[in-house]
Amino acid sequence: MREFELIEEIRKHNRELSACGGAEVLIPPGDDMALVGMTGRRVLIAADQVIGGRHFAAGTPMALVARKALARNISDIAAMAAVPSCAVATVALPAGMPDTDVRALADGLRAAAREFRCPVVGGDVGTHASADAPLVVSVTVLAEPGPTGRVVTRSGARPGDMLCVTGTLGGGWNPDGTGRHLSFTPRVAEALALVELLGDRLHAMIDISDGLGRDAGHLAAESGLAAEIDAERLPLAAGADWRAGIGRGEDYELAFACEGAPPDALCGTPVTVIGHFVAGAAGRVLVRSEGAEHDASSLGWEHGS
Amino acid sequence: MREFELIEEIRKHNRELSACGGAEVLIPPGDDMALVGMTGRRVLIAADQVIGGRHFAAGTPMALVARKALARNISDIAAMAAVPSCAVATVALPAGMPDTDVRALADGLRAAAREFRCPVVGGDVGTHASADAPLVVSVTVLAEPGPTGRVVTRSGARPGDMLCVTGTLGGGWNPDGTGRHLSFTPRVAEALALVELLGDRLHAMIDISDGLGRDAGHLAAESGLAAEIDAERLPLAAGADWRAGIGRGEDYELAFACEGAPPDALCGTPVTVIGHFVAGAAGRVLVRSEGAEHDASSLGWEHGS
Repeated sequence: MREFELIEEIRKHNRELSACGGAEVLIPPGDDMALVGMTGRRVLIAADQVIGGRHFAAGTPMALVARKALARNISDIAAMAAVPSCAVATVALPAGMPDTDVRALADGLRAAAREFRCPVVGGDVGTHASADAPLVVSVTVLAEPGPTGRVVTRSGARPGDMLCVTGTLGGGWNPDGTGRHLSFTPRVAEALALVELLGDRLHAMIDISDGLGRDAGHLAAESGLAAEIDAERLPLAAGADWRAGIGRGEDYELAFACEGAPPDALCGTPVTVIGHFVAGAAGRVLVRSEGAEHDASSLGWEHGS
Repeated sequence: MREFELIEEIRKHNRELSACGGAEVLIPPGDDMALVGMTGRRVLIAADQVIGGRHFAAGTPMALVARKALARNISDIAAMAAVPSCAVATVALPAGMPDTDVRALADGLRAAAREFRCPVVGGDVGTHASADAPLVVSVTVLAEPGPTGRVVTRSGARPGDMLCVTGTLGGGWNPDGTGRHLSFTPRVAEALALVELLGDRLHAMIDISDGLGRDAGHLAAESGLAAEIDAERLPLAAGADWRAGIGRGEDYELAFACEGAPPDALCGTPVTVIGHFVAGAAGRVLVRSEGAEHDASSLGWEHGS
């Protein structure tokens, strides 16, 4: 099963595609490009990839690889408080990859598209020259602003803003490659609810993919501020200590800056205030634990880079 | 130089980004997603990739790799007679790739973006676990319909339509990996001129990436027709015989179906009538050469699959 067969497979699912939600698909997969109808004239776009041996371990079921490839991108959509429109994917297959795996990958992408209401409308399937070369799945997503029209960026936090996170931290990527990174649900609904609830009190937002320490650092840097985190307040996943909560990546939760108190929960997902923003060296993140201060940049995470 | 450094590099070029043409960049690279302004509410999207050892040989200068990765996608835009808006790219680097190569790749993408008036507004840089793993550059492009509002698909050819091509064939990908595939100019201007000139007489179009035989087959299949090609009329590149003109890929010329005569040239690029469409087995392409008939599907090309 290669490109043409895959495209045929996808075309059979065109009815499914329209029922999937997201953008209206005016020209479906199978032509040189897909044509999609948007509701407005502003389009958000991002791309991310999963690389075998780096973002998933050998033996990971193809359905989970496909889901993760799309879910990482959907998490970026959540970080902007936007709504998924559609996606395209390119896949570089190891030479000689069994057809059952290729099919499982394609089925997995379709299932993830349904789950995230983000139809996969095109792409390319290529094959490596070598059987040892790793599978690479690259996904690009389009999104549109939500009902309020507001897009939330990484910049805009103000001194005194609270630093808050959704869900739990430190359970995304365990040292053995297990963890929630293969099964997390991107916080799209939570982000939309947050914009509705907080309005102008919501100042900046990011999703936690590189680890809280680095991603809080991005929020701080883009806002020209420093951030302080209270390690005792971190909502840690089972088995994670505060260093894991700060330093490990792939939590795919939201971190945001807001004025005044956030809601306790969003769509059933808990929200925790873990620190605040202060005037200071732009991008610096201090973590206080049992009276000691740690620079979060020393807890950095390079797994996914 | 890794992701964050690359993003900094790109941000320094924001002014360049806006001067590049294409979509208005409302939120530039550096946030979770880029936000672009479009002129209408229909967006075209396609993705394609280049894989080391498959689409380019070892030792190919990074600037040419980057250019090809974008140019392949721009050729898909030409095939729809659309206008480039913006692009995103993901790059999977071999472990330990020298910084000079990474920089040359980034510079090459920027140079290609300028050349094709298609700003690169986001993406991801990842690193393989192994130094032997091939470089993979995946590019997604957005486009919008041109001034006429018309988008030209692969379907719509009618019996009696002429089958025409731009430029020359068979010189795109030589057996030793050289050829125009690293330097071709996608036929965006030619396609827009063609829509203006032929209007409703232009029925269907595709770009020739898999080889004329297969791509004419796509036009025919999508239109429910067969096609016949006169080998003696093929505009062959220097050194290419008719089998190379039919079977080799990566010409990145346009093939189109039109009623009545096409123009002799478009923007200085020659146009040649090489055959016509007939009622028959959908997707079948017959090539006549010196009185003999050949099925083009037997001249297929799998290099890029």
